[in-house]
Amino acid sequence: MKKISKMVIRRLPRYYRYLSDLRNEGVERISSTELSKRLKVTASQIRQDLNCFGGFGQQGYGYNVAQLHEAIGDILGLSMHYKMIIIGSGNLGHALANYAGFARRGFQLVGMFDISEAVVGTEIHGISVQHMSALEAFCQEEAPEIAVLTVTKLAAPEVAEKLAKLGIKGIWNFSFMELVAPPGVHVENVHLSDSLMMLAHHITPHSGKKSKIKE
Amino acid sequence: MKKISKMVIRRLPRYYRYLSDLRNEGVERISSTELSKRLKVTASQIRQDLNCFGGFGQQGYGYNVAQLHEAIGDILGLSMHYKMIIIGSGNLGHALANYAGFARRGFQLVGMFDISEAVVGTEIHGISVQHMSALEAFCQEEAPEIAVLTVTKLAAPEVAEKLAKLGIKGIWNFSFMELVAPPGVHVENVHLSDSLMMLAHHITPHSGKKSKIKE
Repeated sequence: MKKISKMVIRRLPRYYRYLSDLRNEGVERISSTELSKRLKVTASQIRQDLNCFGGFGQQGYGYNVAQLHEAIGDILGLSMHYKMIIIGSGNLGHALANYAGFARRGFQLVGMFDISEAVVGTEIHGISVQHMSALEAFCQEEAPEIAVLTVTKLAAPEVAEKLAKLGIKGIWNFSFMELVAPPGVHVENVHLSDSLMMLAHHITPHSGKKSKIKE
Repeated sequence: MKKISKMVIRRLPRYYRYLSDLRNEGVERISSTELSKRLKVTASQIRQDLNCFGGFGQQGYGYNVAQLHEAIGDILGLSMHYKMIIIGSGNLGHALANYAGFARRGFQLVGMFDISEAVVGTEIHGISVQHMSALEAFCQEEAPEIAVLTVTKLAAPEVAEKLAKLGIKGIWNFSFMELVAPPGVHVENVHLSDSLMMLAHHITPHSGKKSKIKE
């Protein structure tokens, strides 16, 4: 497969989400023009992006929704049905365990871990929270690929090292710091406050206000 | 103030987060080269971005961390200390209420609301969850600017309309659907699964695999 540029890859989740909705609504085909209205990407950019996968819509037909949806899902790794564990089972860990979006996208939550005795043994979606000391044996048994990190910023680097040694391939990091990827592991750092800051910027009146960075 | 392009604005939260860390570590000044190593943006792009605010680093000195931090914070609306309410007080609502990042950035959580009797009356950070029926009176009294939406995808559009009428200026939407902004309101739609899909893509071996979109 032709190597797909980073910018195109970044647009794929958005395409995928919209195609999921269309599929659920029973829509069978869609043109690049209709896609562009919804996705805020020009029709020609969409056609260019999809050309990267070696396929073309058909003139007068557009794209077949189910096939496009599956092709993009493949590229996003969703057909791999990766096994996911959550490290840190506080409020955010619980919220992520309940986040319906993941099961729908093919991710299987297979374990949850914490260091706090207070949460060990509590259950979510049939999964019992285990103590961190059980992590090694669990990983050797189950071989999960993805770990969601919702631990303190101090604990995160050490836990990430440990996860890398246990064979985890990808870390989804919510731990308030920019985690550097251990060798052989891909890390996505999530900074929830970034979009909140964007929101605050957009609702703040700026006209006529001067901002000067003093030298 | 010169109008700042969208692309520059999108980089500001990252700059802000790193400058916060530097400030906490007591670092007083930093060069664009040092910033670029950490932020994965070229030194020249950084200088260009910061020039948009009408300020320049000083040759041989670089930028003053505290001043740069404050200037960017202003642009991001963080010195406005916006009042925030959370609509939908389930796991995700609770997790967001506890997310330390917000208070640190100057946002004040002033109210939480839900339709479920089971959570009404429960308390987080001194805030008692109120029933949705109390929302109107609350907004007339407190005039919050930002609402965090963690309700079902079906309920979201209606709740958004209501919030717009009650004077909310910005909606931070976690409700699994692309909310269209009511007039006069800015919406940031959060799709947590997007970065998870990026992660899955990066850990999926693709070499030699052909993907073809059938016509």
